[in-house]
Amino acid sequence: MASEKGKVLLAYSGGLDTSCILAWLIDEGYDVIAFMADVGQEEDFEAARTKALKCGAKDFILSDMKREFVEELIFPAVQANAIYEDVYLLGTSLARPVIARGMIEAAAATGCQYVSHGCTGKGNDQVRFELAFYGLKPDIKVIAPWRNPEFYNRFAGRSALLQYAESKGIAVTQTKAKPWSTDENLFHISYEAGILEDPNTTPPDDMWKLTKSPAAAPDTPEKISIEFQRGIPVKVKVGSTGKEHTDAVDIFLTLNALARANGIGRVDIVENRFIGVKSRGCYESPGATILRAAHIDLEGLTLDREVRRTRDQIITTKFSEFLYYGFFFSPECDFVRGCIPASQKTVNGEVRLSLYKGNVTIEGRVSDEKLYDEKFTSMDDLEGFPAEAATGFIAVQAIRLKQSSRRGAVDRKTVYGL
Amino acid sequence: MASEKGKVLLAYSGGLDTSCILAWLIDEGYDVIAFMADVGQEEDFEAARTKALKCGAKDFILSDMKREFVEELIFPAVQANAIYEDVYLLGTSLARPVIARGMIEAAAATGCQYVSHGCTGKGNDQVRFELAFYGLKPDIKVIAPWRNPEFYNRFAGRSALLQYAESKGIAVTQTKAKPWSTDENLFHISYEAGILEDPNTTPPDDMWKLTKSPAAAPDTPEKISIEFQRGIPVKVKVGSTGKEHTDAVDIFLTLNALARANGIGRVDIVENRFIGVKSRGCYESPGATILRAAHIDLEGLTLDREVRRTRDQIITTKFSEFLYYGFFFSPECDFVRGCIPASQKTVNGEVRLSLYKGNVTIEGRVSDEKLYDEKFTSMDDLEGFPAEAATGFIAVQAIRLKQSSRRGAVDRKTVYGL
Amino acid sequence: MASEKGKVLLAYSGGLDTSCILAWLIDEGYDVIAFMADVGQEEDFEAARTKALKCGAKDFILSDMKREFVEELIFPAVQANAIYEDVYLLGTSLARPVIARGMIEAAAATGCQYVSHGCTGKGNDQVRFELAFYGLKPDIKVIAPWRNPEFYNRFAGRSALLQYAESKGIAVTQTKAKPWSTDENLFHISYEAGILEDPNTTPPDDMWKLTKSPAAAPDTPEKISIEFQRGIPVKVKVGSTGKEHTDAVDIFLTLNALARANGIGRVDIVENRFIGVKSRGCYESPGATILRAAHIDLEGLTLDREVRRTRDQIITTKFSEFLYYGFFFSPECDFVRGCIPASQKTVNGEVRLSLYKGNVTIEGRVSDEKLYDEKFTSMDDLEGFPAEAATGFIAVQAIRLKQSSRRGAVDRKTVYGL
Amino acid sequence: MASEKGKVLLAYSGGLDTSCILAWLIDEGYDVIAFMADVGQEEDFEAARTKALKCGAKDFILSDMKREFVEELIFPAVQANAIYEDVYLLGTSLARPVIARGMIEAAAATGCQYVSHGCTGKGNDQVRFELAFYGLKPDIKVIAPWRNPEFYNRFAGRSALLQYAESKGIAVTQTKAKPWSTDENLFHISYEAGILEDPNTTPPDDMWKLTKSPAAAPDTPEKISIEFQRGIPVKVKVGSTGKEHTDAVDIFLTLNALARANGIGRVDIVENRFIGVKSRGCYESPGATILRAAHIDLEGLTLDREVRRTRDQIITTKFSEFLYYGFFFSPECDFVRGCIPASQKTVNGEVRLSLYKGNVTIEGRVSDEKLYDEKFTSMDDLEGFPAEAATGFIAVQAIRLKQSSRRGAVDRKTVYGL
Repeated sequence: MASEKGKVLLAYSGGLDTSCILAWLIDEGYDVIAFMADVGQEEDFEAARTKALKCGAKDFILSDMKREFVEELIFPAVQANAIYEDVYLLGTSLARPVIARGMIEAAAATGCQYVSHGCTGKGNDQVRFELAFYGLKPDIKVIAPWRNPEFYNRFAGRSALLQYAESKGIAVTQTKAKPWSTDENLFHISYEAGILEDPNTTPPDDMWKLTKSPAAAPDTPEKISIEFQRGIPVKVKVGSTGKEHTDAVDIFLTLNALARANGIGRVDIVENRFIGVKSRGCYESPGATILRAAHIDLEGLTLDREVRRTRDQIITTKFSEFLYYGFFFSPECDFVRGCIPASQKTVNGEVRLSLYKGNVTIEGRVSDEKLYDEKFTSMDDLEGFPAEAATGFIAVQAIRLKQSSRRGAVDRKTVYGL
Repeated sequence: MASEKGKVLLAYSGGLDTSCILAWLIDEGYDVIAFMADVGQEEDFEAARTKALKCGAKDFILSDMKREFVEELIFPAVQANAIYEDVYLLGTSLARPVIARGMIEAAAATGCQYVSHGCTGKGNDQVRFELAFYGLKPDIKVIAPWRNPEFYNRFAGRSALLQYAESKGIAVTQTKAKPWSTDENLFHISYEAGILEDPNTTPPDDMWKLTKSPAAAPDTPEKISIEFQRGIPVKVKVGSTGKEHTDAVDIFLTLNALARANGIGRVDIVENRFIGVKSRGCYESPGATILRAAHIDLEGLTLDREVRRTRDQIITTKFSEFLYYGFFFSPECDFVRGCIPASQKTVNGEVRLSLYKGNVTIEGRVSDEKLYDEKFTSMDDLEGFPAEAATGFIAVQAIRLKQSSRRGAVDRKTVYGL
Repeated sequence: MASEKGKVLLAYSGGLDTSCILAWLIDEGYDVIAFMADVGQEEDFEAARTKALKCGAKDFILSDMKREFVEELIFPAVQANAIYEDVYLLGTSLARPVIARGMIEAAAATGCQYVSHGCTGKGNDQVRFELAFYGLKPDIKVIAPWRNPEFYNRFAGRSALLQYAESKGIAVTQTKAKPWSTDENLFHISYEAGILEDPNTTPPDDMWKLTKSPAAAPDTPEKISIEFQRGIPVKVKVGSTGKEHTDAVDIFLTLNALARANGIGRVDIVENRFIGVKSRGCYESPGATILRAAHIDLEGLTLDREVRRTRDQIITTKFSEFLYYGFFFSPECDFVRGCIPASQKTVNGEVRLSLYKGNVTIEGRVSDEKLYDEKFTSMDDLEGFPAEAATGFIAVQAIRLKQSSRRGAVDRKTVYGL
Repeated sequence: MASEKGKVLLAYSGGLDTSCILAWLIDEGYDVIAFMADVGQEEDFEAARTKALKCGAKDFILSDMKREFVEELIFPAVQANAIYEDVYLLGTSLARPVIARGMIEAAAATGCQYVSHGCTGKGNDQVRFELAFYGLKPDIKVIAPWRNPEFYNRFAGRSALLQYAESKGIAVTQTKAKPWSTDENLFHISYEAGILEDPNTTPPDDMWKLTKSPAAAPDTPEKISIEFQRGIPVKVKVGSTGKEHTDAVDIFLTLNALARANGIGRVDIVENRFIGVKSRGCYESPGATILRAAHIDLEGLTLDREVRRTRDQIITTKFSEFLYYGFFFSPECDFVRGCIPASQKTVNGEVRLSLYKGNVTIEGRVSDEKLYDEKFTSMDDLEGFPAEAATGFIAVQAIRLKQSSRRGAVDRKTVYGL
């Protein structure tokens, strides 16, 4: 018999929080379907299924979203050189739209009127999930227990959750909880909260899960090459194995493995959340760190200067912010994403890199695009360029500066002395 | 007896090119004063003096500009997070305004009507020098031999220069010329041209002059801390020595030494020159690489999000471009530079870093500014923040997205499939 | 005897809404002080005082803020060419910070723990007021009755308010309410809501209160001149009277009078509110329309091109948005406002204008700044400019375009056909 | 017999300058083909043909480019709200790419190795023409006599030209030359140089050619409506005639006629040329002025706020600058133009306007797009919007401001006092 209150699709992680939410939603009179997205995190999905069903879920849905995560989110972010506040490569932000879309589709398929999640009321993820839900299905109803006073007052503190879990027969992992929270997918893992909340605490060595430390990485560099077509990585050649990888997911996972082994991709940042507070996060984004370096390098060779300037100004900044703030399914993000491909027409070629103890070193790049012209650039070659043209160029550029200088020579001195 | 044609102040390097230019200018009927700026390059200045005077210079002026280079150019660039095309830290660009100002002052002091330089007609430096000259003294006359057909046709190719040097009794270093050009100052060294013109040529190991390779760097990390006041580094503490450095030049040179020892600061880029051609450059910017990482990190802790966004959009991008293109002494750069200090009021605090085999790792940061509030940010702490507020926040943010989604739900799906 | 609940400073308008709020706050157990800002609106302040006190206010404070409104808000907006969505001159947005500051000061002076206002829950003004309150005094408490379900459910609909007013002995103006709302200050009057909510309804002729219609305006143009120093209007000369006005408030009111008489300053716009809904507004901003035209014109003569570009990109857009969204007292607005003066150093001179039936026509401009050079610009004068320089300038600008065209000449044709 | 030097396609105007250039090019040993683009200027094309042939042209080519001018240049500019320095609607800039393309095509069809024009060495048009030539055909050779010392020294001053014309039997119009230069096409007419070079000279009434003065315009308003699809005007209904116009060229010419009759579209500006000098220009852009007002208004109703912000920031500003500077056929302009259509998907609907003595007044607008929702916006309607949501929205927006204010309350006061 269907519940009166209706059906909820819950973003289920298998952890204590969402297991308690699952049970609580049932207490509240809802039918609950547990949903889990496989976005490449290391997880025992079968154990999660068993647990969810034991908690009372009517069903458990596991959706493999790795391919669309790579192809529809990660690769456009590579094309756009997306980055947040100069440091963060947006791993969590990129996964949210894929997961939210999977949930909306699963909710439609299973007749759920509600979706629910276990995000806290101070973070970015609640916003990212919910704005994605509303952008995809404006009339969806969202249940956010950690913003519901009934829930958060009842479960203030971990012990209340543990007690409730026990009362519901929910198995609690006996392993001691780490003194931080993590979120993992195939792009990255994030660490925050707990002991990391003091921005002056150095993350302990054993926190880092994905990558070797630079010190523990091999003493021999790994040499690879990455080929891009229209800004999308289409082939990776690995020196040590002699293998070529051409499938999108395979490319990304291969780069991940290489970067993890060579200590690449750790960052530690105090960032600005959308809700206006600062937050300290540590991230490992191994393969993405290589891809970003290679893509930027190839753009140097193949992208027109002013196309790059224009793209940087609008696409890179805006797309990164839209992702971080949760506006992927918005008219403005549709617009900006629609402009990406036109910016990447010439970004074709191959970049050679060396990976060594945390360093990603560009060793060379080639392209059939003809935007770089050795002879033309050569300082030694006087042919092909009228040196006098530069005289005229400078003379014209100087017109405005001379005018301004004549007007206020004194000012210039004063300003300089600042 | 003064020359009829007048006096020229020549930017003299001591090398073959400018020595020949010196002699040629005298041939052309000018009195020449050789000018050299000490911006921290490793150079035998006395040998240069001797050589210049032997070439026929009426005088040799050596001007120590290290302090103003650090304080007036480098530190504002640190405050602004200046960078060109995501990679290049602008070492050459930053030195040019200082040198140009030194030249204009020396020209005034010595009664020179002309200034001259040995820059080629395809590069950025001719523009940077000359726009700086005109911005400081609109009526200055510039002689650029490499853009003068009489000169460049006569001296096309190195052998013509060597022959001319011999005829003038100009000593030529017997050491074989490196197959690339360099420009050095205390901020960095650049390598370009020659074998580097093929963007797929990996720079040979022995090219890199300033830094150890990461592989050759010590196996033990160096721990340091940098204190900033209003975005300016004011103190560096070095773990291995226990010393503190507080003088601006000392701070910069100390960071240079540490970075050089630990393999930090090499980059390799194909960049877009102002005149519209692409060019491959390799750079070592050791201390600057550390400073940039530390400053960006501290801004994360201490700078308001929207001040940062606004600053990034206008100051970082524009100031970097003005520097690279040579518009330091322009009304627009005066304006933008004038906006930097207001953006840095809260950038006060200390960053702890670890330097290891090419890696600059942030280990922690502290500040008395109160923009980061641990309790407020904490995911575990429900006090101090009304979780329901986030519900309202999201609801309002969703209004526009729902409206747009209702209007064109089909569009959203289509766009997603791209 | 002081109320238990504490004291509230209420932004009082004298109208039905805020009179009922006043009485309701007293019902709720607060002591209430009515506050009114004189920002130049046409209002019977004495009648308002009497009414407030009769409603039960413990006190009535009238604060004359006209001068600071003009000098601290309006003039910087003129300097910045502030405008919202190409049309709206921000009259209401500009008044809010002044009023909010007046309230915070009055609250401090009278020991009020609370401030309150009568803004609705869908508009911009609630945000503008409250963000200003919090920006000035972070611990102030705000009472917003129209967002309080107890209040808005009780008083849903005008008749409930009227009934309550009657029960409290609050006099209600017998004049029939206009079918729209207005907000007036010395900068402008706004009209919205009511019959204007249909964006296809033409505003009735008798709605416009401040300005004559162009058709009813005089048949003879009024000639005036406006002198600016550093972008600030410092003198207005009026042709028809021969008078000169030099006081800031007098200047603004004089321009208002002239513009009102000559049918200048009406606009009708569908704009985007901060909370994400669209809204239709009609505005009369008479003097401001003249000032904006004159200031932009003088910048053409006196402002360096690139300073203007940089300023436009960051100050104009951002400052306008900060004003509209209510972020005047924010770190980002402090930063941006701090950059305005440096952009206006050269904006000195005089603009002559003709005002006629809705038209503001520039008739000429002069300045002692030397950024415009007649001889240099003259097409007929070949001296002073090396025509060959332009050849070099174009040749260098073309390098990139030729390179790109060679690479993809076919693309160019295709794109053109779009 | 073909000339040794080869064939030149000359942009011919029929005036004294280009007639003399025609004859001079023949003197110099070239075969010359005269080319004239019909971009809607009022011109006796047959007289021009006769004159060109009489001057010695081997052929005269007249190319009707009105349709592509309207459809491929003007309408995208309307979609982008293109404007230069807040005032100039870019009429000359918009025509240049069309004319240049016509020339490159005609040069190819007639086997010309050269193209030539009569632009001066200080203006924008030389740059616009030549960059367009090079962007379309990188190896085209350009002859610019007014930058050739042989030419400009010989013909310094009008009398030298007149004398040469007489010697060549070139008829010179007896009408006294106007004391300014003009450039006309169907979008606008420009006036510059001559007496206008003094920026304080009021243009004489009889200068304005296209539009009636507001004073001379009819006393009765003309009522029209304009329908847009995806930002493109597709139908104009004229109140006084009852007629509907749906063809692109007809739409534009109809609006021109209405605007001219009603005194609409005059501006007077000191603008910044690309080469770095300021220049005073007067323009009449009648129909374009109406279209811009209508398009901006409809965007208010139909365009999402953030799409608009993003579009304004990048497309409007950049596209306008590319047009003005002459970079229409550049990779960056290709990129930006490619982004326009995606920004206009929802810009569908009808705008009603009143035209009266220089004023363009919006009277209303309708659209089937559902981005404006009367009920939702209504201040009176409390349903459909949770007023409490605004409380949460404001609370979250205030977090950052409170934090900042707590940190530096004193600063806030200080800044305010500026």
